[in-house]
Amino acid sequence: MRIVFIGAGNLATHLAEACYAAHHEVLQVYSRTLENAIILANRIGAAPINDLSQINPTAELYLFSVKDDALPDVIEQMPQTEGLWVHTAGSLPMNIFAEHHVNYGVLYPLQTFSKKRKIVFDAIPIFVEGSNAATSHQLEEFAATVSGKIQLLSSEKRRFLHLAAVYACNFVNHMYTLAAEIINKEDIPFEILIPLINETASKITTMTPSEAQTGPAVRNDENVMEKHRALLMDPEKEELYSMLSKSIFKYTNSL
Amino acid sequence: MRIVFIGAGNLATHLAEACYAAHHEVLQVYSRTLENAIILANRIGAAPINDLSQINPTAELYLFSVKDDALPDVIEQMPQTEGLWVHTAGSLPMNIFAEHHVNYGVLYPLQTFSKKRKIVFDAIPIFVEGSNAATSHQLEEFAATVSGKIQLLSSEKRRFLHLAAVYACNFVNHMYTLAAEIINKEDIPFEILIPLINETASKITTMTPSEAQTGPAVRNDENVMEKHRALLMDPEKEELYSMLSKSIFKYTNSL
Repeated sequence: MRIVFIGAGNLATHLAEACYAAHHEVLQVYSRTLENAIILANRIGAAPINDLSQINPTAELYLFSVKDDALPDVIEQMPQTEGLWVHTAGSLPMNIFAEHHVNYGVLYPLQTFSKKRKIVFDAIPIFVEGSNAATSHQLEEFAATVSGKIQLLSSEKRRFLHLAAVYACNFVNHMYTLAAEIINKEDIPFEILIPLINETASKITTMTPSEAQTGPAVRNDENVMEKHRALLMDPEKEELYSMLSKSIFKYTNSL
Repeated sequence: MRIVFIGAGNLATHLAEACYAAHHEVLQVYSRTLENAIILANRIGAAPINDLSQINPTAELYLFSVKDDALPDVIEQMPQTEGLWVHTAGSLPMNIFAEHHVNYGVLYPLQTFSKKRKIVFDAIPIFVEGSNAATSHQLEEFAATVSGKIQLLSSEKRRFLHLAAVYACNFVNHMYTLAAEIINKEDIPFEILIPLINETASKITTMTPSEAQTGPAVRNDENVMEKHRALLMDPEKEELYSMLSKSIFKYTNSL
């Protein structure tokens, strides 16, 4: 397919490279910051632009991958074109395009993307939705060129999937950040936690997360939790520790 | 070594089985609940007991692996014996034994243990501490029979390591629980999140957790976060979402 990327962030970068590797033709990369457009465009043989009026109107697919807050404005300024308009945002409904274009949809890859980190796209679940049956089908076929795990999913359900991903990825990663801070202060390297982190992630492939729960909160070991809070020496962190512990106890003991 | 286990919980079960596999002789398994003592003892050719006065006083090593809250009472009721007295608790200091025995120490395996889940002990970091140089050395040698990763660590530093483990494992697992709840309600299976969970755990082996952070909180995408809170439909969960998001933003933007 002949594709234009609107956006050059983490997700756009990885998806554009996967499209390039799958022999699609990426015509242009738009970014508000020309430098970012150039970096990505150069890697995939596309033309960098930073002005939406320069968008090539003859592409078959326009992939909008910008910050959710920015998407309505970008759509507003988008010139009329052929092809499909498709965004990649977990939380935004498909019909954000409805007043601006005929054929549109969503392509949501459920993964965390950082520019510095290579990723194998093939194993990433991709959720697609089209404004009509033909568009849905077209998006399924397109998505299947970059991943082996394609599913149709409504905007309504995608919101919940995105919310769950925030817990399973963003909040989890922040727990890693807090853990790293605690032991780095004691000159213990973060790497020591990796077997524990791997086993924690691996456990929930063979049991439910509730069954897998261990630690002082599920045992309601008040002694240990009190000592832990005292080590944190920061009221906000203590409160977060308490809230998380209470939530663990509530879940594991109501099941 | 000739070993007596005091405790038959998750950690005791896995450690006792690793000792048995490493050809140590486990003489007895004590548990307050005889049934639990029997289950573990039967698997490793030991005698089950539920009365501390029946403890065999001729073992070389007594491994105390009970709930932290219960340990002081158990030590109080422990008859005089030969050998080392060693506990496995991350948060308790070694000197909890000081008034009761001569040679004592700590053996802390940094891992999450569930009875239902098999585990390869060999890759688990084990932190040991002895009441004197000879005891430390003896514990290092013993620990090396079940794992390839042995380190000496003081009680002072072990407290922080245990606290970090609560974040990296227990709190992380609870995030999986909350994620599962959100999508299970929408009839989306939890398994769909596994590639995301694996990549999140894998990313921090090649970059720091702060560098790896993605999602609406680090972008300060208020729109998305407000929509997410609304989907939760529960004031406590909304507050936890907000606290975690604020903490993410604070960390990633102060670094």
